[in-house]
Amino acid sequence: MVHGPLPDLPGDTVAFSIRPVDGVFYQLFSESAQHLVRGSGLLAEMFAEGTDRAAKAKEMREAESDADGTTRAIIQRVNKTFVTPFDREDIHALAYGLDDAMDEMEEACDLINLYDVASYPSEFAKQVELIQRCAELTAAAMPRLQSLDLEEYWLEIGRLEKAGDKSFRRIISKLFSGNYDALEVLKLKDVVEKLEGAINAFETVAKRVEQIAVKES
Amino acid sequence: MVHGPLPDLPGDTVAFSIRPVDGVFYQLFSESAQHLVRGSGLLAEMFAEGTDRAAKAKEMREAESDADGTTRAIIQRVNKTFVTPFDREDIHALAYGLDDAMDEMEEACDLINLYDVASYPSEFAKQVELIQRCAELTAAAMPRLQSLDLEEYWLEIGRLEKAGDKSFRRIISKLFSGNYDALEVLKLKDVVEKLEGAINAFETVAKRVEQIAVKES
Amino acid sequence: MVHGPLPDLPGDTVAFSIRPVDGVFYQLFSESAQHLVRGSGLLAEMFAEGTDRAAKAKEMREAESDADGTTRAIIQRVNKTFVTPFDREDIHALAYGLDDAMDEMEEACDLINLYDVASYPSEFAKQVELIQRCAELTAAAMPRLQSLDLEEYWLEIGRLEKAGDKSFRRIISKLFSGNYDALEVLKLKDVVEKLEGAINAFETVAKRVEQIAVKES
Repeated sequence: MVHGPLPDLPGDTVAFSIRPVDGVFYQLFSESAQHLVRGSGLLAEMFAEGTDRAAKAKEMREAESDADGTTRAIIQRVNKTFVTPFDREDIHALAYGLDDAMDEMEEACDLINLYDVASYPSEFAKQVELIQRCAELTAAAMPRLQSLDLEEYWLEIGRLEKAGDKSFRRIISKLFSGNYDALEVLKLKDVVEKLEGAINAFETVAKRVEQIAVKES
Repeated sequence: MVHGPLPDLPGDTVAFSIRPVDGVFYQLFSESAQHLVRGSGLLAEMFAEGTDRAAKAKEMREAESDADGTTRAIIQRVNKTFVTPFDREDIHALAYGLDDAMDEMEEACDLINLYDVASYPSEFAKQVELIQRCAELTAAAMPRLQSLDLEEYWLEIGRLEKAGDKSFRRIISKLFSGNYDALEVLKLKDVVEKLEGAINAFETVAKRVEQIAVKES
Repeated sequence: MVHGPLPDLPGDTVAFSIRPVDGVFYQLFSESAQHLVRGSGLLAEMFAEGTDRAAKAKEMREAESDADGTTRAIIQRVNKTFVTPFDREDIHALAYGLDDAMDEMEEACDLINLYDVASYPSEFAKQVELIQRCAELTAAAMPRLQSLDLEEYWLEIGRLEKAGDKSFRRIISKLFSGNYDALEVLKLKDVVEKLEGAINAFETVAKRVEQIAVKES
């Protein structure tokens, strides 16, 4: 199945592409990244004062289920399409990469709800801001997959991941500083590791985009 | 290689199947699920009073190794068979899904043996009952893969997973209630997370069966 | 693309091989295993007295990044080569298996740096010796992949893994003996689990080599 470029997506400089373009893939990847923006927003709300965490975690489970639907749609399409915009295995890897980012965020929300810690060190909210920024950058990048002019995107995600890693280390040091009892450390460490997992998942997505760009260029 | 349906398996309504049937696949999947029934039984015995946990854990390692053999047999067969009963990747995913469930149970047994907690909160045995029920349902479903009339199976696994999740949450809350010291929490949390992992692995198997059924219908 | 055997590698008894040989694969697998030798050395230095752990962990990150480069080179080559020395999926599995071993060691270094425990129980250094031995055996085995006369290699890795597992269990028992406070246990347990993960990753590599040997014989 061969489609022309979608008229409402930027970067459609496909005139000399060696591959016919099935624009639906770009649309589905964009949809997948939109779920991540929604998910990262819900994750941020988990830390807001007065949030009904159980209700919010339920909303997150629904968002994650919607994201699953998009992932499945990508996989089904790649299995049924003869000519794909890039290698089948790269489409798989990118789709599952986006899905993993959603899963990590959903698991973070789930733990936050389950542990119900009264108040988190302020650094936690900063990690979530980084995650939200990653989600927005990813959502902005997906519609431009066609042109693969995305170097600024993956470099910026790399910078955010580095910042997140530094902050993660500061949080761990703080947790083991003696100001928290062991049971609190257990809970807070689980949550911050999950947030770190989400940031790493976004970095994995960016690396896969970079690999596709290198391969296709 | 093309086989007719196995005479001793139910649901052999293949008259209008668009695929020739290699019945050996159904037999191997059934064998794989039988390992799960055996494994879940051994897991239950780990919690029984007076059990020689080291001996039982050794038995579980043997069961897991037998299950590996069946998984390998499925993978080798799919690699050597020209016409498979469903997509190669689905056979892979299902085989590895069953294998993961066994691994989770084996790791649970291993932790229970290693930590040697004198007595577990009663909720742990309830989780293991759910796991046994999942294993039995899976074993009953595998011989019926051919007809794919398995909706009741995956719905019931979904219900068990939900029940397991609720129970998991109650256990975690109990562990952090202040009645357990931090070292006990560390051990009990590791074990209950592994049990949760086993239940989730069964759910993943059921979801893969559902996906195959949707695709092939 | 068909290459003859590399002149500087041992075991080039390919005269009766049923597959044309692309010697570059053996070279790349050897390179990959050399990264593991380097990585296991850095890991050992993390435990040495007076080590600048932050500097050493940085060096390890660079080593891990170099190893990634080799993994990518293998994957790219397998994607572009028509005739491969063994099944594509086996090359993938072996390449990613070696990569996983490096990742586990890198994560161990990272944790050791992050937690900055003043002094580790002596058993930790013993685990790292096992890891170094695994890395050396793997590096000695890779250039001999062509002849697949590697039974002694995978049996010895199996023995090391068993020894590592026993030692791991002794360490866990020690950690929970009451001589360590819960926060120390948390840190030491994370590190020893990561070391155990590295040994298991080497065992997975050896099992994959065994599977290839069985399949190709």
